[in-house]
Amino acid sequence: MAKNPKLRIIPLGGLGEIGKNMTVFELGDDAIIVDTGIMFPANDMFGVDYIIPDFKYLTERKGLKIHGILYTHGHEDHVGATQHIVQTFPNVPIYATPLTAGLIGVKLEEARLEKTTTVKVFQAGDILKVGPFVVESYHVCHSIPDCVGFGINTPYGLVVHSGDYKFDNTPVDGKKPDYAKLAEFSRRGVLMLMADSTNADQPGWTPSESVIDGAFDAVFRQARGRIMVATFASLISRVHQVGKAAQVHGRKIAVAGHSMAKNIKMARDLGILNIPDEMFIDLNRINQVPDNKVVILVTGAQGEPSAVLGRLATGRHRQLDVREGDTIIVSSHTIPGNEEMVNRTINRLFQKGADVIYDPIAAVHVSGHARQEEMRLLINLTNPKYFMPVHGELRHLRAHGKLAMQAGIPANNIFIVENGFVLEADKNGVRVSERVPGGYVFVDGSGVGDIGPAVIRDRETLARDGFMMVVANVDAKSGELLDDPEIISRGFVYLRDATDLMATVKSTINEVLSNSNSRNGNRRDKLQESLGRVLYNETRRRPMIFAVINEQ
Amino acid sequence: MAKNPKLRIIPLGGLGEIGKNMTVFELGDDAIIVDTGIMFPANDMFGVDYIIPDFKYLTERKGLKIHGILYTHGHEDHVGATQHIVQTFPNVPIYATPLTAGLIGVKLEEARLEKTTTVKVFQAGDILKVGPFVVESYHVCHSIPDCVGFGINTPYGLVVHSGDYKFDNTPVDGKKPDYAKLAEFSRRGVLMLMADSTNADQPGWTPSESVIDGAFDAVFRQARGRIMVATFASLISRVHQVGKAAQVHGRKIAVAGHSMAKNIKMARDLGILNIPDEMFIDLNRINQVPDNKVVILVTGAQGEPSAVLGRLATGRHRQLDVREGDTIIVSSHTIPGNEEMVNRTINRLFQKGADVIYDPIAAVHVSGHARQEEMRLLINLTNPKYFMPVHGELRHLRAHGKLAMQAGIPANNIFIVENGFVLEADKNGVRVSERVPGGYVFVDGSGVGDIGPAVIRDRETLARDGFMMVVANVDAKSGELLDDPEIISRGFVYLRDATDLMATVKSTINEVLSNSNSRNGNRRDKLQESLGRVLYNETRRRPMIFAVINEQ
Repeated sequence: MAKNPKLRIIPLGGLGEIGKNMTVFELGDDAIIVDTGIMFPANDMFGVDYIIPDFKYLTERKGLKIHGILYTHGHEDHVGATQHIVQTFPNVPIYATPLTAGLIGVKLEEARLEKTTTVKVFQAGDILKVGPFVVESYHVCHSIPDCVGFGINTPYGLVVHSGDYKFDNTPVDGKKPDYAKLAEFSRRGVLMLMADSTNADQPGWTPSESVIDGAFDAVFRQARGRIMVATFASLISRVHQVGKAAQVHGRKIAVAGHSMAKNIKMARDLGILNIPDEMFIDLNRINQVPDNKVVILVTGAQGEPSAVLGRLATGRHRQLDVREGDTIIVSSHTIPGNEEMVNRTINRLFQKGADVIYDPIAAVHVSGHARQEEMRLLINLTNPKYFMPVHGELRHLRAHGKLAMQAGIPANNIFIVENGFVLEADKNGVRVSERVPGGYVFVDGSGVGDIGPAVIRDRETLARDGFMMVVANVDAKSGELLDDPEIISRGFVYLRDATDLMATVKSTINEVLSNSNSRNGNRRDKLQESLGRVLYNETRRRPMIFAVINEQ
Repeated sequence: MAKNPKLRIIPLGGLGEIGKNMTVFELGDDAIIVDTGIMFPANDMFGVDYIIPDFKYLTERKGLKIHGILYTHGHEDHVGATQHIVQTFPNVPIYATPLTAGLIGVKLEEARLEKTTTVKVFQAGDILKVGPFVVESYHVCHSIPDCVGFGINTPYGLVVHSGDYKFDNTPVDGKKPDYAKLAEFSRRGVLMLMADSTNADQPGWTPSESVIDGAFDAVFRQARGRIMVATFASLISRVHQVGKAAQVHGRKIAVAGHSMAKNIKMARDLGILNIPDEMFIDLNRINQVPDNKVVILVTGAQGEPSAVLGRLATGRHRQLDVREGDTIIVSSHTIPGNEEMVNRTINRLFQKGADVIYDPIAAVHVSGHARQEEMRLLINLTNPKYFMPVHGELRHLRAHGKLAMQAGIPANNIFIVENGFVLEADKNGVRVSERVPGGYVFVDGSGVGDIGPAVIRDRETLARDGFMMVVANVDAKSGELLDDPEIISRGFVYLRDATDLMATVKSTINEVLSNSNSRNGNRRDKLQESLGRVLYNETRRRPMIFAVINEQ
């Protein structure tokens, strides 16, 4: 190792959000990674299944040794790309708390990668020695149990990474924020705080998860029929709350949705979720108990058409249907971009006669992220010299930066950067250094990174106006049409109803081919151009146009 | 006219929202229409420009005489389809308040339809005799001046239609809600109230538009450089508020955006907007005054890439650029479905160095619609026998219905219906009758109603996985390929990087064509099927596949 190697901190691979899905910490040529999550595609990223960070910087960085991948918690935007990083860097050990390790284990098994790496389970509060770093994990509250932040000891001081957090003083699992550890960090001196900015434009303090208990209790007390609760498959603490309400109100719990059933089993096996066996009932047996004695946990709170709630809304679930008298609680944050789908699902459930309870109708969901007053508290608790807002869009980072300035951190010590920017630290302090590839990669079907902006642009054009293709057989000598050209079109107009338009198209083809004595390539361009002009004039639309001219 | 003709009330043509864009009131064969607005397409209605109500019921209804079209206010979701209804029913007079008439006039001129109808201008409070109906207009507060609701006198009692409303006790233009008229309606007895449900799931009372004055004042006081305010082109009261702040803080007003400039001119000509000439400065001349002496009104607050704010965010505006020191206020409600685009625009403006102020950073926008306490007030003020929640999705109507029940209206007297359901009234009261075509029609380019679900489904498939087309010339006798098949594909994979895949495609084509001694149609199907299978196996994607086989 070089003498006095520099510390480098690099946020990688967010889509809009910065420093959320993956962060690299390097000391010279030794590195650790914190989190490897996925992002969900924006509505105009047509056909993309999900998005992972671009590992290019890591694969091209010469001489780098990655000593471990540390996870803060088990949500998809932090662990979702685990199989991809393990494929790229096999045999790098993974460090995770029990629940997070359980969720990662399920993923690795599905990808048949469980033998390609080692998962080292730690408890919040444990101190991990990973490569040249001594990492002090500490418990934070969020919307899933077993979350941690990290205090990363470096030769230039302690870097505190908040993970996703809120200061929940009455957490559902009773495990309070580790204020003592944060105070201890502060006593020892914090070089830099990297903190979650998700709600940095929201004033006040995020309500405790436990306010949901009250809302659930009211709904359970009033409901005369079946209750269904839709939430994230990984929202284990919400499942815990449903369990409590079910026990109080004498309802059995059924589970619909493969991923949710698997996660509940895993959390129960680990002892994280304490709901006795006799509280559960098989989904196929719920008709054997009265409607007011059952609550059903379902997936699909984001309005995904193929998840349970989406199927129920459109009557396409094999075992369940929604009927008059059902009460459905939609208990999860709507991911930006999914609002339309969620609202449509809720309306369809109302249409089927259910009563649907959603935020703001009742407090059946609260955010898992800190708001402004909690952010001020974290800054004041840790009292860092430098501050780097992370986990948020640029607008959130700016708002978080303002809070830090109000807390007395000089503007020059606050780093609001985009993904791929390197923060460099040595004995003289922290500064922004060069930029490295920090983008993201689309996953579509089995393809990772094989579609890029050009393909997406084509999909956008096809989505807007469709295409028209003309295949014309012409006489090689005269250039005249030998038979009726074949015309194929999708997504443009309904051809059968567009007889006038098709006549215009055919006469355009005839005209161009008979007037053109040029060579094939040129004639093809001319035909495509003319058809484009004619179609735009007639419809004000611009479908993609392709012509194939076969000389015979 | 038949003796004792029935009253029929029919909400038509909302997309998700009910009774918002257009309502028909019939008395026997005599009808009036209230509002003819457009809807914005959902994100999965690919390529659709906008959506209008389906006029099918009206065009097919035998013997119906439409006596007038009455408008509540000038927003697009209430007046946007005016040119389409005028084209379908020429010479039916239009009734509108001055500003609404002005906005409609601009539309009719652009569509060259100003001679096809007559616009009769009335003032809020005027009583209109339209066909067999005596309609009492009354002033309501919303987010545009010159809004009205209607009290429609019928043989069976008074029907009160709220229009879009909020109870703003300190309105920007000083024109308070017409409580007196509502109380008078109540004294005379109200048969049915039809009321705006937009915010029915929001507790409390919507803040007055005037709270924005305070937020604007704070921003104007702090800004050291230029200020830009992005809002709807039709949000005239917001322009008024910017004018007040500009006057107080000594800034000139420039306007960027054709539609906004036109609306401001029209509102000033009508005397609705009182900002003196000398307060305005031409956009081309703003460099002649110091940065801290100018405020620029811009369009594009919904993040539309082609409007001014969208162009500024991506550096594509001809006259303006965004730079360090600019303060940009985004002052408008984000239409559901546009969240991603708005947030992306805000992030890009931050990236360019501007400070962006948006809700919830500061109260630079408030809703124009009543919340729950205002809804309760309207119900109690008018004390109707029957209640029909309108202007909202089903979930909002249900929530509004609950408020009405809490106010003492029996559940059987509350009508929560979908578009196209007919409410019928006679001396025995009001009930739900049959359902008529109440859907909507897509407008795409110059086509009205020529694309339907089949074309949209094709666009969806193309957007997700693109297409591949194969044109193969084969020997008519042997069926063997005569030359290399032509392969055209878009939106599927980047062909140039997919050499292995293309080799597989070509060998599949060879194999199918040489093994197949069947006729062309069958062979074509077989080729398409085989290619589909191969591509799915290789990529887990399902592009549309087309094969053309030319026998020579």
